[in-house]
Amino acid sequence: MLPNLYEKQDCSLARALEVVGERWTLLIMRDAYYGVQRFCDLQTHLDIPRAVLADRLKTLVAHGLLERHEEPPGSGRPLYLLTDRGRALWPALHALRSWGEEFAPAPDGPRRLFTHVGCGGNVSGASVCGTCGEPVAVQDVESAPGTGLRNPGRDDVVSTWLAEPKRLCQPMEY
Amino acid sequence: MLPNLYEKQDCSLARALEVVGERWTLLIMRDAYYGVQRFCDLQTHLDIPRAVLADRLKTLVAHGLLERHEEPPGSGRPLYLLTDRGRALWPALHALRSWGEEFAPAPDGPRRLFTHVGCGGNVSGASVCGTCGEPVAVQDVESAPGTGLRNPGRDDVVSTWLAEPKRLCQPMEY
Repeated sequence: MLPNLYEKQDCSLARALEVVGERWTLLIMRDAYYGVQRFCDLQTHLDIPRAVLADRLKTLVAHGLLERHEEPPGSGRPLYLLTDRGRALWPALHALRSWGEEFAPAPDGPRRLFTHVGCGGNVSGASVCGTCGEPVAVQDVESAPGTGLRNPGRDDVVSTWLAEPKRLCQPMEY
Repeated sequence: MLPNLYEKQDCSLARALEVVGERWTLLIMRDAYYGVQRFCDLQTHLDIPRAVLADRLKTLVAHGLLERHEEPPGSGRPLYLLTDRGRALWPALHALRSWGEEFAPAPDGPRRLFTHVGCGGNVSGASVCGTCGEPVAVQDVESAPGTGLRNPGRDDVVSTWLAEPKRLCQPMEY
């Protein structure tokens, strides 16, 4: 396997990739923005080995994108909560997703739509509202299923949660 | 090794990551924006095994981010040229780099600066000019060494080329 570090690349992109460039890491962050906080829910939705998920979460906590809290304290059942640093990554993730939507589109249209809470404008790949023209922070984005979402889709607890429009960064409810 | 595909992730982010999420791929694209077009220059600057570079270039060509041309034709010496699809990825890469700059800063300031050709404003992480307020396309960005660039830095041909301000997407000259 290739090492995780880019030691000779004197560059802030390489440093960012050392934190979030490993396989699955950005999809874990995607789910964190959707409000998923529990290990078991991340594992079910991402469908990855426990060891991989645990490794990626450890890196994200070590670099301050997520915080690990036990709920209730001492229970050994962690919640992974977004930090400011984690929320600040959203524009990069959204830009990458928008590129994927444009250049590798789903046959029946976007799987998900991203709109500005309040005015309802579409959030561009540059995280700007297409209606009011303001920059949009992740907390002010609503994500809803688009026409391209597979139907019937998956029926795990996270997919079910995401079948209705959700404001990003709001914890998943049970 | 984990597979390259995210088959059960019905999501445009996962599709984008299938194209550009492998290790080194975004750093190859970074160098392509800097004007690096030759295999040997990419290999020297990135300092990676030939087989890894060849594999990543093959993926980028297959998905239409780069085009492979032989120069002169029939010589077997390829140039890898950016396409519109490749240029369209820049905002995502720049957003990720900007996040890296903000949250894992180099001790002496940014390694590189990104300004809007013409007005000279700083290009934000959202690819907007801080002076004129316009969205900035990659072709209209100039990149120059910042205060945080290691001095003495590397002395390969690409690093030497990048020691002076360069407009992005302009082919490297010899």
